[in-house]
Amino acid sequence: MIKDQKIPDATIERVALYLRPLEDLIKLGVHVISSDRLAEMCKVNPAQVRKDLSYFGGFGVRGVGYNIHDLIFEIKKILASDREWKLGIAGLDDMGMALLQHKNFFKRGYKFVAAFDSDPKKIGQRLPIGLTIQPIRKIKPMAQDLGIEIGVITTSPLQAQVVADMFFDAGIKAILNFSPIHIRRPDCCLVQNVDFSVTLDQLAYRLSKEV
Amino acid sequence: MIKDQKIPDATIERVALYLRPLEDLIKLGVHVISSDRLAEMCKVNPAQVRKDLSYFGGFGVRGVGYNIHDLIFEIKKILASDREWKLGIAGLDDMGMALLQHKNFFKRGYKFVAAFDSDPKKIGQRLPIGLTIQPIRKIKPMAQDLGIEIGVITTSPLQAQVVADMFFDAGIKAILNFSPIHIRRPDCCLVQNVDFSVTLDQLAYRLSKEV
Repeated sequence: MIKDQKIPDATIERVALYLRPLEDLIKLGVHVISSDRLAEMCKVNPAQVRKDLSYFGGFGVRGVGYNIHDLIFEIKKILASDREWKLGIAGLDDMGMALLQHKNFFKRGYKFVAAFDSDPKKIGQRLPIGLTIQPIRKIKPMAQDLGIEIGVITTSPLQAQVVADMFFDAGIKAILNFSPIHIRRPDCCLVQNVDFSVTLDQLAYRLSKEV
Repeated sequence: MIKDQKIPDATIERVALYLRPLEDLIKLGVHVISSDRLAEMCKVNPAQVRKDLSYFGGFGVRGVGYNIHDLIFEIKKILASDREWKLGIAGLDDMGMALLQHKNFFKRGYKFVAAFDSDPKKIGQRLPIGLTIQPIRKIKPMAQDLGIEIGVITTSPLQAQVVADMFFDAGIKAILNFSPIHIRRPDCCLVQNVDFSVTLDQLAYRLSKEV
């Protein structure tokens, strides 16, 4: 029921956000939702929700709402999250360990298939999810053998670019970067930065307006 | 030089994103930037950058660019990140520990003044940043004594709502939630969720379109 493949990036970012509350509702036995309710749960304008969902075809019924099950199915198809993605992670300090144990990743189809670190004390250690920590220099051969598609960087800023270059060199086209540096990348490749301090800036702004 | 206080939320989210590369450039000795360059660094449309920055007054010079120093100053003023915010964190597993040591937080004016956990083995431990882990039940008195403004939740999903209610009860009006549950909140309060799997969904979407 997809009407058009040319969906704006901002819509994609928002529909990715809609997924979590929709999945929560299904678990609670709710099968239909109004755009107003979904908008409220996601802190988005209801007109915006209706516009975003219009890209995904016509399963909203006026005065009733959207069939949640259909909506999840279509959103996942669009987001390409209806399949498994293979992830490799480099940097196994607290942040790396937290990500490896993040239940939402696995549940949403993101599977860590390799973990790398440069610390000789960590290399060879067995992780709770069943992987053994490998040295950084094995990134290229292992990424190719295992078919890693997304590289996750949780190293120190000093190491982040070196690790990124190894991921790119192995043919990996997408990186999720938690290290607070700007990663240089080939034109063919994608880098998405995660910076909690940006999220805090947004929250602090809203707080300073409300109180 | 602020023209108007009614800045759209989406603009706020983007200008918070612009800050990091701008600060990196200052460190590298660069003092002027074009909207095209900034747009490229932040993966945003150049026209969008110009529109966003127009809310912050007229320090762009046609054919030259923006004065980075002025831009940072105005963005920080708008975001209210030109002052220190006091944070309390509950949940000191890997994610909590990673956040406590996140250098960008402190650099950007976000200071953890208290840390809470429910695990008797953790309570009383001294953290590298100088705080001692306190029991969850001390959230209310300590939040009030220390003037905590933002509560950060990195507990298990089972504990997240209980902790959130304690933060709200202590008069805290904003929560940054890393736990994968939907936090119920009083109308007066703000909750911002951080969900890396949403970020991965966005990256996987872009990857599936490019390759």
